[in-house]
Amino acid sequence: MKIVTVEAPVNIAVIKYWGKRDEELILPINDSLSATLSTDFMCAKTTILASPLLKEDVFWLNGKQQSLDNPRLQNCLKEIKRRTNLESPILNWNISICSINNFPTAAGLASSAAGYAGLVAALAALYNIEGDITGVARVGSGSACRSLYGGWVQWNKGITSTGEDSIAHQIAPLSHWPEMKVLILVVNDERKKYSSTSGMKKSVETSELLPFRANTVVPKRIEAIKEAILKKDFETFAEITMKDSNSFHAICLDTLPPCVYMNDVSHAIVDVVHQYNAIKNSHKVAYTFDAGPNACLFLLESEVDEFLSVINYVFQPPTDLKTLEYIRGIKTEPKIIKDELKLSFEPKQQKPGFLKFIIHTTVGNGPRIIEDPENHLLTNEGLPKDL
Amino acid sequence: MKIVTVEAPVNIAVIKYWGKRDEELILPINDSLSATLSTDFMCAKTTILASPLLKEDVFWLNGKQQSLDNPRLQNCLKEIKRRTNLESPILNWNISICSINNFPTAAGLASSAAGYAGLVAALAALYNIEGDITGVARVGSGSACRSLYGGWVQWNKGITSTGEDSIAHQIAPLSHWPEMKVLILVVNDERKKYSSTSGMKKSVETSELLPFRANTVVPKRIEAIKEAILKKDFETFAEITMKDSNSFHAICLDTLPPCVYMNDVSHAIVDVVHQYNAIKNSHKVAYTFDAGPNACLFLLESEVDEFLSVINYVFQPPTDLKTLEYIRGIKTEPKIIKDELKLSFEPKQQKPGFLKFIIHTTVGNGPRIIEDPENHLLTNEGLPKDL
Repeated sequence: MKIVTVEAPVNIAVIKYWGKRDEELILPINDSLSATLSTDFMCAKTTILASPLLKEDVFWLNGKQQSLDNPRLQNCLKEIKRRTNLESPILNWNISICSINNFPTAAGLASSAAGYAGLVAALAALYNIEGDITGVARVGSGSACRSLYGGWVQWNKGITSTGEDSIAHQIAPLSHWPEMKVLILVVNDERKKYSSTSGMKKSVETSELLPFRANTVVPKRIEAIKEAILKKDFETFAEITMKDSNSFHAICLDTLPPCVYMNDVSHAIVDVVHQYNAIKNSHKVAYTFDAGPNACLFLLESEVDEFLSVINYVFQPPTDLKTLEYIRGIKTEPKIIKDELKLSFEPKQQKPGFLKFIIHTTVGNGPRIIEDPENHLLTNEGLPKDL
Repeated sequence: MKIVTVEAPVNIAVIKYWGKRDEELILPINDSLSATLSTDFMCAKTTILASPLLKEDVFWLNGKQQSLDNPRLQNCLKEIKRRTNLESPILNWNISICSINNFPTAAGLASSAAGYAGLVAALAALYNIEGDITGVARVGSGSACRSLYGGWVQWNKGITSTGEDSIAHQIAPLSHWPEMKVLILVVNDERKKYSSTSGMKKSVETSELLPFRANTVVPKRIEAIKEAILKKDFETFAEITMKDSNSFHAICLDTLPPCVYMNDVSHAIVDVVHQYNAIKNSHKVAYTFDAGPNACLFLLESEVDEFLSVINYVFQPPTDLKTLEYIRGIKTEPKIIKDELKLSFEPKQQKPGFLKFIIHTTVGNGPRIIEDPENHLLTNEGLPKDL
């Protein structure tokens, strides 16, 4: 019997992945680049047990038993087993997988990247795989490959048809720019969701702007933002981050039918950020939006309290939440907005609850193997402990 | 003394004008193509009186006296006078201009195209200008040049630096496709407005996708939509119209800071149109959005009643309006939505008043000189009659 538990992070792309050149192998049409977020506030936790006593492979996700018949999950398992030493007895044992994520429910935060990164990191530890495993996570969920490293991570699109060069690598570790903080503004949304998988497929089929973005716009941005990160040049980093988020949503809108992920509240947040930066006469805050309405804001530690004073001035928290539940994560010192800032913003223009809550977090490390047996999610019989 | 009155139409672009290559001469970076709308429901009416008795040039707009010091207005006047026979005594007379538009107030419908088209058509009649005058209207407000013809009109971007080839011409008259109707869904909007002049300037400065749209995407669309119009191929016309509207708003979003003109209600209308077309298994309705949240829908006469039954099912009219005030323009036969359509739409999902009202109109003719002296807006002394 062998058991492994891993905690894996989410990541937020500052240069976005949108569009595949191979649907099956999940090969993208452009490079992307992301920051890995701390697992302290958002992570997927995965325990895998391999045992000769298990009658069959089983999979538990957030407390519910799931079929293993999912082709993406199967692709990951197949690829891991292909890389395993053929003499390893464990290859013949069945496995039990148990995965949970600690994301606030109903936040609409993408969990598949952390989920597949955790799964693949745990499988790699279980089967003693050496070398790159980001290509294995990629076939589970494209952007999961970027969650296998901490700090700042680039996913190379690769050029081969088999995808062995479509892997992720670290640009800079967390320690390079520890002042970088992240605010996730979770936005209420009543629109029906478009899945990003089908959205990006439709974009590839119908957007005439997409190839230009992928082939001409993104390659320059990748180089420029890498340089900005390595120089810790927040101003340039912020400008490219905002431009690429806008460019990605522009492509979504250029799709037929259009994929619209940002809503009026998202755009109101964009307005607040630009207004704040205009007052400060430089980019102090950068927004980026994934395939949903939530804003992910990058800003340096020194700016967090003041910027939150503006957010609290413009947006009314839901009436039924206490402050601690509204701003979660790293503790902040609530501040009253300065008078000179008040002049530039409209107070409480948005109805209460347009922002559900805020997560204050930081760039973080990659997946972490948890040694303490107390922390395994499975019993030695392969059943979830909390069943 | 000489007096002329003109009624001029608005036009709705199906291939959008966005971005200038010359700010002063208003020379665009791409061709655009529009339908002129009937003056029956939306028009600008302009009377110009020239008289040796007038002490100075005066200008009345919607009942209020305005300065003539506006550089765009001056450019139009200068260009008209440059083209006038030097021996004409009228050249030395002062003029009084009076212009009103009959658009529903607070609708956020662009009036400058109709306004400048009317001004220039009236000036041309007053000063006996012969030949093309669309280049004169263009220096007042770019898209005004397209309002000088009825039916379907193309504005050539031109290639000269002086702009004499940046003029509009008719592709097909109203009589070519009289079945084409238009619904304008006027949407409530609480966001602050970005002017389209400064918006397109910012796009030229910051959007990396814009040159590709202007140089590569639009030229192909212009040819394809002209062919579709000439063949009365609604399916192709609708697809290109929707794609170009989306592409234009994509460019706006790709601008830094982004120009966001569509809001959640606009996007809800887009969803309804795509859903309706999906049920009908072909494009029966096409949307296009200008620099604002209002939807302009093209559809054939045979489709109007049924599509309106869906709009009335999905959107609740404002509670304080009567039906006649809610659907204006060409009379419609109110229909109850068919049961098989009900299944595909959510009833009354939007709050009442998200749509302010609807204008049902049609493609129409160009500016019209009004002979009846009763209809002049000015007295022989050059004062507004309703003053």
